[in-house]
Amino acid sequence: MHSFKLTLAYDGTRYSGWQFQPGCLTLQETLEQALAKITGETIRVIASGRTDAGVHALGQAVSFRSDTALAPAVLLKALNAELPHDMAVLAAEYAAANFHAIASAKRKRYRYLLCDGPVRDVFARNYAWQLHTRLDDAAMHRAAQALVGKHDFASFETSGSERQSSVRTVLELTVSRGGAAPQISPVGPPHGCPADFVSIEIEADGFLYNMVRAITGTLVEVGQGKRGEDWPREVLAACDRRAAGRTAPAQGLVMLRVDYGL
Amino acid sequence: MHSFKLTLAYDGTRYSGWQFQPGCLTLQETLEQALAKITGETIRVIASGRTDAGVHALGQAVSFRSDTALAPAVLLKALNAELPHDMAVLAAEYAAANFHAIASAKRKRYRYLLCDGPVRDVFARNYAWQLHTRLDDAAMHRAAQALVGKHDFASFETSGSERQSSVRTVLELTVSRGGAAPQISPVGPPHGCPADFVSIEIEADGFLYNMVRAITGTLVEVGQGKRGEDWPREVLAACDRRAAGRTAPAQGLVMLRVDYGL
Repeated sequence: MHSFKLTLAYDGTRYSGWQFQPGCLTLQETLEQALAKITGETIRVIASGRTDAGVHALGQAVSFRSDTALAPAVLLKALNAELPHDMAVLAAEYAAANFHAIASAKRKRYRYLLCDGPVRDVFARNYAWQLHTRLDDAAMHRAAQALVGKHDFASFETSGSERQSSVRTVLELTVSRGGAAPQISPVGPPHGCPADFVSIEIEADGFLYNMVRAITGTLVEVGQGKRGEDWPREVLAACDRRAAGRTAPAQGLVMLRVDYGL
Repeated sequence: MHSFKLTLAYDGTRYSGWQFQPGCLTLQETLEQALAKITGETIRVIASGRTDAGVHALGQAVSFRSDTALAPAVLLKALNAELPHDMAVLAAEYAAANFHAIASAKRKRYRYLLCDGPVRDVFARNYAWQLHTRLDDAAMHRAAQALVGKHDFASFETSGSERQSSVRTVLELTVSRGGAAPQISPVGPPHGCPADFVSIEIEADGFLYNMVRAITGTLVEVGQGKRGEDWPREVLAACDRRAAGRTAPAQGLVMLRVDYGL
């Protein structure tokens, strides 16, 4: 029995999210079916985070165990031949026997992409939240710094979660226009203008359910001038989801990477 | 009666190309239906070039005439509210009475995008031709220079066209890795790696049917080392479509802009 770690990229547009649901197209089932076809085994995979419908990944981490004699490099090629074109295995490796994609994770990094150009970007429609007013990205960045550090993020957690604690440590929270997300539009200049995109990158030791999207919805209200720069600090202190802004739509979110401190 | 010029962006993935075809979803019919709804008139639009199924545009130019009293800026907003999210009007303006999107065009510019990374880019699947061997982009660029200038491009024209002459003037033909196409992948770094993309940009006074895609198919054979750098020059001299490489797939092609020398 081997323990494996996969790093996956996927375009979440077509999928009802990561987690298996009967009658729905899910990323988990698609990967498990490809593994079954290749190894002949019934394999359960565990992802570092169960992304929602429409959420993307550039570096999702997955763990599983298998009796397969296939080397990781062979498994990678076989999986990429089997998977649909909106999923790809970027890396496959043997992992420690006790490696677990959720329990072993030390830090995760997400990006949320906003588009605020004068006309919608047709190539970003599945990859950004398109807003119709120009955002004050500098004010958003300043306001966001109140969330950096170890805090109770209950105000930014969608209820119904079973997590025991809503305390998390945000290591970095950067709001930037253009430069930080140099490759946004699949078809590029002259009209896929970097200056029309604002990216929010967040790295933390863990995330609550919908945390990045609730933080984004809150920062957008600051960027639109509807709320002052002190507001996110007040929302955080309230420890009440009703205090925060709306949950930003799924398609702007991408899981960038998971660090295991290996 | 006013003469109008529109500049359009569209993601061609869902469409059976520009030109109206009964029973198919086309860009022309989608735009004409939106115009009919807004103006109450039956309007025929003319595009600078009838892009094929799966081909994209960042700056398609369209002309039409209408009795509408709506100012161009109002028409732009009304069209963008009416059109599906994979089409957008970037600019609307009054044009000279005799303006014709095809006949008045002085130069057009296209880009063809190639992806040659070790693993497919899931976000580029509808916007690039994904190849599995690394391309020698410098050799492709050198080889391409033989096509710059005024030549008979019959070797790069798909047969069945009704054009009277296959002589065109290529003003620029640039093959470059990474830098020339800084925004390629909708979801960006770290895995949407600019170094894994090669772009071919071509500007000419006009293009034959499938000309960019036939030039691309030919240059790719040079980039893969299957043919020498002198081969495109020989293909050009042959004036025979059978001498050239394959027609590259549609999804890598994007119409960048049309110049009218106004």
